[in-house]
Amino acid sequence: MKTIAYQGIEGSYSHMTALRLFGPNCKFLGYSQFSSVFEAVGKGEADAALLAIENTLIGTIYEVLDLLGQSDLRIQGETKTRIEHCLLTLPEAELEQIRSVYSHPKALGQCLRFFRKHPFLQPIDYHDTAAAAQFVAKKKDLSCAAIASRTAAMLHGLKVCVANIEDNQENYTRFLLLGKKESQGPKSTLRLTLEHRPGSLAEILGIIAKEGVNVTDIVSRPIVGRPFEYAFYLDLERPSQELLTELRNKAKTFRSFGSYGAL
Amino acid sequence: MKTIAYQGIEGSYSHMTALRLFGPNCKFLGYSQFSSVFEAVGKGEADAALLAIENTLIGTIYEVLDLLGQSDLRIQGETKTRIEHCLLTLPEAELEQIRSVYSHPKALGQCLRFFRKHPFLQPIDYHDTAAAAQFVAKKKDLSCAAIASRTAAMLHGLKVCVANIEDNQENYTRFLLLGKKESQGPKSTLRLTLEHRPGSLAEILGIIAKEGVNVTDIVSRPIVGRPFEYAFYLDLERPSQELLTELRNKAKTFRSFGSYGAL
Repeated sequence: MKTIAYQGIEGSYSHMTALRLFGPNCKFLGYSQFSSVFEAVGKGEADAALLAIENTLIGTIYEVLDLLGQSDLRIQGETKTRIEHCLLTLPEAELEQIRSVYSHPKALGQCLRFFRKHPFLQPIDYHDTAAAAQFVAKKKDLSCAAIASRTAAMLHGLKVCVANIEDNQENYTRFLLLGKKESQGPKSTLRLTLEHRPGSLAEILGIIAKEGVNVTDIVSRPIVGRPFEYAFYLDLERPSQELLTELRNKAKTFRSFGSYGAL
Repeated sequence: MKTIAYQGIEGSYSHMTALRLFGPNCKFLGYSQFSSVFEAVGKGEADAALLAIENTLIGTIYEVLDLLGQSDLRIQGETKTRIEHCLLTLPEAELEQIRSVYSHPKALGQCLRFFRKHPFLQPIDYHDTAAAAQFVAKKKDLSCAAIASRTAAMLHGLKVCVANIEDNQENYTRFLLLGKKESQGPKSTLRLTLEHRPGSLAEILGIIAKEGVNVTDIVSRPIVGRPFEYAFYLDLERPSQELLTELRNKAKTFRSFGSYGAL
């Protein structure tokens, strides 16, 4: 049986995505720290890791990107999950009874219109959406609710009192599947460091553009120990082997995290 | 008397930097949220805001960059502060007596070598370095210490028991001074959105490179409501008015946060 590591607890958006991809015949291991998820695969406790890398409202999850840069794991695939925040209550509770709403501050901040429409609801910070659902389920107080996913409702025995309460429906999280084995697919993720001179990034991007290859994401991260110098993470669509070789030759350092496709 | 807003409490690295720049004849207002610092200047409670925008170990402080993108404030100058973590204790305490060390998790994580050399010290997470110093000062327990700045020691009546305990000495934070008035200087910060097609970023960077202008920083951030499209923040050194006009014409949207220099 395949084992998939993820960050969070049961019912988190990561767990929900892992369940959708791998079904009930896999074992899922939740860890509280992103670094522990990488270690779980490194030490063989899990076969692969599913990690959120980017959210369309919040941006790149830089801690995960930095850990990827330090690890030997390969990207085996990617997937996108629509984030639908729901107000979860005890099965017998009604919306009018609710006073306290627990969730991660980012999730609370994504449902401001709902809170304005229901001024009797008090948002309360909690460290994790799914953990907030678990807390509400255990508390058994009819005036308490959580904002989390449908899966969290199902797993913790709560009711979806109001669905889709997020302000912006264009809320997606992109996940990477990481493992030890090499994969194949149209997309490649690279980490490049460049000579510290004007135009070095323009030159690299010019080479890529000349080949008609699309850069779907570019992220700069600091190089520790080299103040105000940066490494660039690039996602490329269908780069040829020749283009990758040219980039390797032009860059000061070059790393590919593998080629992969949609899961 | 000029009033400067910053994020944090007295003795934080932001407050320390504001003190260094503006001296004791200014009034300093600390706010717990970055957004409140922007609002303070917007509402006229403060004349300017000093905000950390980047750290050489952690990277861009994206929350501040996103708030800058949403605000009308202008960048009036920048400065860099060397982050020197110190072990602060009660004046009468000795290192051998210390057991608990309170600080922000990022600061604790930057002093791992010191903790390995002193295994009797237990790191304990606290939400802020300067607040940890304040807590230790109030607790009056000889076995407790904080990791924070020299300024925090001075302001909270603590002793610098061990100085420079950080693993990596190349630890700098870059701060921006923001206000309502326009400034002048060699550096410009822009926010551009581009056509969503291959090569659009390469084209923009190519135009900049052709003029021999250095891009000292490039950061991509998501555009809310347009999944997987990005806005680019660029720092340029001495761009000509002609170059800025050309970029304005080529970009889908163009915003300049002003030109400024070192404070």
